[in-house]
Amino acid sequence: MSDHSAIPATLTYDPESDRPQEECGVFAVYGADDASILTALGLHALQHRGQEACGIATHDGSRFHIERYLGLVGENFTSPDMPQRLPGRVAIGHARYSTQGASVLRNVQPLFADVRGGGIALAHNGNLTNARVLREELVNHGQIFQSTSDSEVVLHLAALSKKSKLTNRVLSALKQVQGAFAFVAVVNDRLIVARDPFGIRPLVMGRLGDAYVFASETCALDMVGAKFEREIEPGEAVVVNEDGLRSERFSPARPAQICAFEYIYFARPDSVIEGRSVYEARKEMGRQLALETPADVDVIIPVPDSGVPAAIGFSEASGIPFELGIIRSHFVGRTFIQPTQDRRDLSVRRKHAANAAVVKGKRVLLIDDSIVRGTTSLKIVRMMREAGAVEVHFRSACPPIKHPDFYGIDMAGRDELIAANMSVEDMATKLEADSLGFLTVNGLYQAVIGAPRNDKLPQLADHYFTGEYPTLLADHDRDLSAKEFQLSFLVDA
Amino acid sequence: MSDHSAIPATLTYDPESDRPQEECGVFAVYGADDASILTALGLHALQHRGQEACGIATHDGSRFHIERYLGLVGENFTSPDMPQRLPGRVAIGHARYSTQGASVLRNVQPLFADVRGGGIALAHNGNLTNARVLREELVNHGQIFQSTSDSEVVLHLAALSKKSKLTNRVLSALKQVQGAFAFVAVVNDRLIVARDPFGIRPLVMGRLGDAYVFASETCALDMVGAKFEREIEPGEAVVVNEDGLRSERFSPARPAQICAFEYIYFARPDSVIEGRSVYEARKEMGRQLALETPADVDVIIPVPDSGVPAAIGFSEASGIPFELGIIRSHFVGRTFIQPTQDRRDLSVRRKHAANAAVVKGKRVLLIDDSIVRGTTSLKIVRMMREAGAVEVHFRSACPPIKHPDFYGIDMAGRDELIAANMSVEDMATKLEADSLGFLTVNGLYQAVIGAPRNDKLPQLADHYFTGEYPTLLADHDRDLSAKEFQLSFLVDA
Amino acid sequence: MSDHSAIPATLTYDPESDRPQEECGVFAVYGADDASILTALGLHALQHRGQEACGIATHDGSRFHIERYLGLVGENFTSPDMPQRLPGRVAIGHARYSTQGASVLRNVQPLFADVRGGGIALAHNGNLTNARVLREELVNHGQIFQSTSDSEVVLHLAALSKKSKLTNRVLSALKQVQGAFAFVAVVNDRLIVARDPFGIRPLVMGRLGDAYVFASETCALDMVGAKFEREIEPGEAVVVNEDGLRSERFSPARPAQICAFEYIYFARPDSVIEGRSVYEARKEMGRQLALETPADVDVIIPVPDSGVPAAIGFSEASGIPFELGIIRSHFVGRTFIQPTQDRRDLSVRRKHAANAAVVKGKRVLLIDDSIVRGTTSLKIVRMMREAGAVEVHFRSACPPIKHPDFYGIDMAGRDELIAANMSVEDMATKLEADSLGFLTVNGLYQAVIGAPRNDKLPQLADHYFTGEYPTLLADHDRDLSAKEFQLSFLVDA
Amino acid sequence: MSDHSAIPATLTYDPESDRPQEECGVFAVYGADDASILTALGLHALQHRGQEACGIATHDGSRFHIERYLGLVGENFTSPDMPQRLPGRVAIGHARYSTQGASVLRNVQPLFADVRGGGIALAHNGNLTNARVLREELVNHGQIFQSTSDSEVVLHLAALSKKSKLTNRVLSALKQVQGAFAFVAVVNDRLIVARDPFGIRPLVMGRLGDAYVFASETCALDMVGAKFEREIEPGEAVVVNEDGLRSERFSPARPAQICAFEYIYFARPDSVIEGRSVYEARKEMGRQLALETPADVDVIIPVPDSGVPAAIGFSEASGIPFELGIIRSHFVGRTFIQPTQDRRDLSVRRKHAANAAVVKGKRVLLIDDSIVRGTTSLKIVRMMREAGAVEVHFRSACPPIKHPDFYGIDMAGRDELIAANMSVEDMATKLEADSLGFLTVNGLYQAVIGAPRNDKLPQLADHYFTGEYPTLLADHDRDLSAKEFQLSFLVDA
Repeated sequence: MSDHSAIPATLTYDPESDRPQEECGVFAVYGADDASILTALGLHALQHRGQEACGIATHDGSRFHIERYLGLVGENFTSPDMPQRLPGRVAIGHARYSTQGASVLRNVQPLFADVRGGGIALAHNGNLTNARVLREELVNHGQIFQSTSDSEVVLHLAALSKKSKLTNRVLSALKQVQGAFAFVAVVNDRLIVARDPFGIRPLVMGRLGDAYVFASETCALDMVGAKFEREIEPGEAVVVNEDGLRSERFSPARPAQICAFEYIYFARPDSVIEGRSVYEARKEMGRQLALETPADVDVIIPVPDSGVPAAIGFSEASGIPFELGIIRSHFVGRTFIQPTQDRRDLSVRRKHAANAAVVKGKRVLLIDDSIVRGTTSLKIVRMMREAGAVEVHFRSACPPIKHPDFYGIDMAGRDELIAANMSVEDMATKLEADSLGFLTVNGLYQAVIGAPRNDKLPQLADHYFTGEYPTLLADHDRDLSAKEFQLSFLVDA
Repeated sequence: MSDHSAIPATLTYDPESDRPQEECGVFAVYGADDASILTALGLHALQHRGQEACGIATHDGSRFHIERYLGLVGENFTSPDMPQRLPGRVAIGHARYSTQGASVLRNVQPLFADVRGGGIALAHNGNLTNARVLREELVNHGQIFQSTSDSEVVLHLAALSKKSKLTNRVLSALKQVQGAFAFVAVVNDRLIVARDPFGIRPLVMGRLGDAYVFASETCALDMVGAKFEREIEPGEAVVVNEDGLRSERFSPARPAQICAFEYIYFARPDSVIEGRSVYEARKEMGRQLALETPADVDVIIPVPDSGVPAAIGFSEASGIPFELGIIRSHFVGRTFIQPTQDRRDLSVRRKHAANAAVVKGKRVLLIDDSIVRGTTSLKIVRMMREAGAVEVHFRSACPPIKHPDFYGIDMAGRDELIAANMSVEDMATKLEADSLGFLTVNGLYQAVIGAPRNDKLPQLADHYFTGEYPTLLADHDRDLSAKEFQLSFLVDA
Repeated sequence: MSDHSAIPATLTYDPESDRPQEECGVFAVYGADDASILTALGLHALQHRGQEACGIATHDGSRFHIERYLGLVGENFTSPDMPQRLPGRVAIGHARYSTQGASVLRNVQPLFADVRGGGIALAHNGNLTNARVLREELVNHGQIFQSTSDSEVVLHLAALSKKSKLTNRVLSALKQVQGAFAFVAVVNDRLIVARDPFGIRPLVMGRLGDAYVFASETCALDMVGAKFEREIEPGEAVVVNEDGLRSERFSPARPAQICAFEYIYFARPDSVIEGRSVYEARKEMGRQLALETPADVDVIIPVPDSGVPAAIGFSEASGIPFELGIIRSHFVGRTFIQPTQDRRDLSVRRKHAANAAVVKGKRVLLIDDSIVRGTTSLKIVRMMREAGAVEVHFRSACPPIKHPDFYGIDMAGRDELIAANMSVEDMATKLEADSLGFLTVNGLYQAVIGAPRNDKLPQLADHYFTGEYPTLLADHDRDLSAKEFQLSFLVDA
Repeated sequence: MSDHSAIPATLTYDPESDRPQEECGVFAVYGADDASILTALGLHALQHRGQEACGIATHDGSRFHIERYLGLVGENFTSPDMPQRLPGRVAIGHARYSTQGASVLRNVQPLFADVRGGGIALAHNGNLTNARVLREELVNHGQIFQSTSDSEVVLHLAALSKKSKLTNRVLSALKQVQGAFAFVAVVNDRLIVARDPFGIRPLVMGRLGDAYVFASETCALDMVGAKFEREIEPGEAVVVNEDGLRSERFSPARPAQICAFEYIYFARPDSVIEGRSVYEARKEMGRQLALETPADVDVIIPVPDSGVPAAIGFSEASGIPFELGIIRSHFVGRTFIQPTQDRRDLSVRRKHAANAAVVKGKRVLLIDDSIVRGTTSLKIVRMMREAGAVEVHFRSACPPIKHPDFYGIDMAGRDELIAANMSVEDMATKLEADSLGFLTVNGLYQAVIGAPRNDKLPQLADHYFTGEYPTLLADHDRDLSAKEFQLSFLVDA
């Protein structure tokens, strides 16, 4: 595949995608001259976690500076005057994938509020599971909400806290929220970062000279040249000021129960999460898959790009050759006009093409990281047959996805999840595959942590497969998750 | 002057302008199928009151729809799908001239908040003189502020009010704010409009079939074909719902004390304010000026465009011919690069050119609506001499401006106001004018209301000239007006 | 949103305009360090002659530099790095109003061609009346045409000329073209400017220190501080190189027969053409009109802005007061959506509003510079009546327009010209005016040159009124004017 | 300019790239209702051949329609009204990678010219080696050149041909040009496609129902669902009209000598060129490389994305595991600001990251498709060591590049080509690699055609490695290749 050096922003959003969508990546720096430049670089390394919008907030010792844009970091935070526009030695940044169809600039982070005791700029990755309940209470108390973002709840809680110091009021707010989050906030001239009580979302700390750096993934530390120091612990908040770093707990210590999909799909393969290389974990998923659901085929073909490591692992374990049987275009763009006489599906052809040379006359095994709705999987199976495959088998490198997420992943509703509504056999028929197989839950655990699932205290957030949600789901239980806001749609441009 | 049919938006903002800048125009409709279309037209007619940003909010019976843009109404609210994007029979709109150097989309109106009891979309023209005091109190109470706009205070006050009905809570909020304002708000499915207790900012009501229409000026009623019904009274709020219109008072009845600059400069000449044609008032200012400070000259030359009616009046009263001795370009654009050898002032030439044919060898009298800093006046006097004028006299069709405004006009600080710091003689010298004259305060009253000033109860807000402010100035008295916000600068794009 | 960097081209074109459209203004400098900066300023002063596109070409002694844009000069030629991007002491510039519905960047000038002996960058104002005939011949000879612009013909003729020196080949080309034009060209490191044999289009020369400056109008000389020296004569070409200026004739000497519409409408009022102030000429047209077709009315109201000088003249001559009875909005933008219930005409309201205060109950006389199709005139007459005028009379400050133009003015086709198809009485009825009057042809001559028309050798190009075209009309006579090009539509963006 | 949604051109051009740059892809359709839609899809599949600009021309039976844009096909040719804007059953399209630093819209193809006998819209991939010589002759003959594009020469030659039929004149023009090209042209209502006499650039034909489809690569046929029929032969022109297809020869029959870099780098892996799968050829290059220059290492790591197939082949042949040791970001954007304290190279980190998990403590072998300047190779070697590799070996899957290209590939000048100026040992030292190896020329032939090089009649254009150019190089021999044009720089926007 050729070297296409730049992918314009607008091309990276694909409304026809059948992938889970991560909402965000966060990054923060305390104590570096180039805080905003480093943050731009760090966010660039986290761009795979959200391409729709990005923002950076800094504090220069006396005032806040915030810029937020729709589009990519590399389009919006590369201007030479950035150090002047975003001065200061403390900065936070956010890359966002909106869960909403429309781009609502008002919800782009970091949010900012003037509150008693100063100002707070705040960004988070994740989702609060009691945000609506809290919002209702806060509104009844007389607070006003100007966005539909979860994070606004935290600002109100901090503003209303009776504690005297603003950093303590922010910590107090964190005690009241439930769900999954990695928070980064500039509170006056300080930096506060925090990770949710179960450690569902990742958050790591590194050092760059004297500066402290925090990021959703280690690949962002690598990008800025920072040295990985440790994970932020579940329920831990870290406050950094000129005297250094202070760790605070806002919930009891416990092992992290990180979202399994970070390993399966979201994180960049070169990131290391809780000590485990994402790339190695994915390869191992492929190896486990080869053990659990072998296939008598001629070639192993990954669904690019996320199926590649598992396919390499499957190939290694099975000895069956690995081939690039599907070529992916990185020039996606808008939906093209369908020619009137053409009955084939344009949406898949726009992105994928069969490499007939390695498919024709072969029994092929397709490996994808996961199957969500199955719509793309079906198109790819058909594409393989059109290219001359004599058999087309399909394997998912993760278990069947049967339950929705409430922690910030836009996965499709339960009735859209193919595995929630069909047997594996029916799915195989539906996907027109000669065979279909999924990794088992224990196979997943084996690949990620090298041990089976501890059913008493699962080592991963695996609700997608098991239906066991680590946290309370207050909004969901009171049926508030789907409640519509007063404001249907706000366009700012 | 030729017919240049369109002036692009960006050209209408001129950072080198030496004119007072009005902050806003507001428009509202209740009960029309095309509420958002009518609002766009109404705002277009009010575009002279603010060219930097515009916004429209509607309510469709169950939800709010809001769009806000930097730029002109005619660029942003003309799309054919507007009725679908902004549906509903109730709408408010806002055209804004920012008082801040930077364009902060977050402050663009209408603002929106989810509060106890529903939603409020709100826009206003004017300035609250106790907004900072209230903001401090509200922040101490635990409220969070996400913009630097005055209007956010009103949202909080309404949210915190103990009254049960949301419309009553909005009225309660209005009782607590001081200053000058014309408010329009959609409160759930109702419309509320209100005018400040002294009637400093204008606000009129009209009917268009069964619909109610409200606007800053009558020219906007004319634009949509609405029939003028009456002024909203000082301290009056009007609530419109499906049962019709209800008038409420939030401060005692008293005659309006409208801002004199509406007559002098801001309002469109075809508007009628408090029963007085703006055009006739301006011509009469010219006539009064001719009586008070006659000049022995050959031609009367208006500084275009705002000096034209007064110059016509002066010409009529004096019998001296009126001539277009200055040609104004409507193509302003960005600041051009100054040629290295050129010592003349490019900023004035970019906009104005002398019409030597009527200037050369003549004693000319320049008439402008007002003199603020005097910087442009000086350039124009020099331009007249370069074009061959043998004498250049100057007259301001309003009295000397000696005091700043606190009601939403960006007039320049007191130390920049030339008349605040110099005698008329010194000003004449400074402006290099052979003579200089100003309208008297009583001349102004005569022109506008046909009677002298009632010093006990002035019929106009004339603090610019007299230093007598109609309202309390709580922020100013506690020195909060100039207080900087935490957030220095927020760019959203 | 943006940082105001771009004016959408669509804003500068008004398809509803009922005015004649001039195609271009040209400007040229030889021998100044800031040649491109001066050209930008000069074009800004000529912006009224064309707002759709603009371009500047320079030569730095060894190479050409050209930039061309859709949109205004003030938006495209103000960047601080312009001197680096457009270096050189010789420059030409062009402001264009396309006669075509679509914006074809390929036709934007200056054009450039590599030809035998060097390079030519060329721009012109006007229209060649034998361009199609020549194009046919050239195509048959084997030349290729890549634009639909007249100017391309000149480039081919120069390329094919047998003369040895390239400047002479350009002069040779000029001898072969017919029509009306003001040419400016950089030919290698030289500047050539030329005016058509009849002097239909204006072109003046000025000095700025040692530099030579050429422009369509004197207002552009004033803008850059150049001193007017003389008109370029009909049929004269001026070649400037480092040794100075050389005048060449490419057609016999004869008095200029300048287009009457330059005085009536196109030129800026502060320009002086052939020694006559445009502003004074327009006022005098108004005075003549008052003598020729007096009206028993209460007020004289100009149709803004181009009717103003004539209205002042009419008012002075008649003693009837001059009033701004129509207020013009400078914020035109795109066409607004028509409210469904509104039967009034939005296109006129978007730009004009009646000032009822001076109209109501009055007998009004509207004065416009000209009447083309009459569509806008009718709307304005109706607007006056809606505003309460008891009688509405109408006067055109030029004679009835009965014949199309072939010299670069987009006037409407003959069947659209109201005066070509109706008696004055029928027109009055059609326009719903209580009376209608036109300036006579001799009245026009009196106003412009102070003498009656010399029918043997008319002092103006007055074919609009008389049907007498000064030049041959080869394309028209062979019915080539309307011939469609192969290329229907080319979009470059 | 325009609301055509616009990808900033700057995003698609990467000045830091160390890859050869292909200039173009072409596509053509005759006889389909959706000709322009099919062309957009076909160009999208060829987007890897050029991302800077794209254009489509159609003929609707009587007239031409052309649209050209800077940016990607997927951003510019997806509007639903495209069939109306670009109607007709014949269409050609072009995707371009400019060889010039600046984007010159004027050179964007298809070019169009009105010539004797009709119109020609023309696009080509490749480069003419006698274009400058011909241009000189044509200019001396009196032709004018308005672009710097090769293709303009062809238009002039066709225009000047003495033949009567325009299609024959185009064929006559093709006989006069030398070099490498794949031409597609609409000549009035006909389609003409042609491939250069040596078949250096690829061009294939397919059928889609009754329609004829032509493309640079088979992947574009696959995209539109067309069935591959055959290669266009070297020196063959195909003329299609309503009577069907006619093949013409403009040079003697001979076997194709296709550019080796099509197999090595340019073509999409799923394309089949001259019967050979590109993907298989690349894998075989890897296998050959393993035989010719084995390495004692722990892992094989491709430089993504273009090194992947060769690395798979090397891994298969050597039995050493294939791992994704470098993770590539597809979000490149503009160049970021370098943090002041950071001495590492940002340009490589922006695009590539080391996957330490598979690199640390390992002896790694990097495989890239080629080494041009070596600048990126060095950065990647260093990145591997920083990630903990204990040995870093490097292999190029093609022979050393020692000679520049004159057929449309922007490869870097000879003094920049590292292999042209150094021994393999010195290169290894320079690249800081523990060992360095290149495929041999015969190894390349073996991989591509399964036979050694025929030195009498080489089966590939392999001048990069051998210095043997298949064609005459008239411009080069007369030292015209580097001649500067008169026009240094033209910006159209």
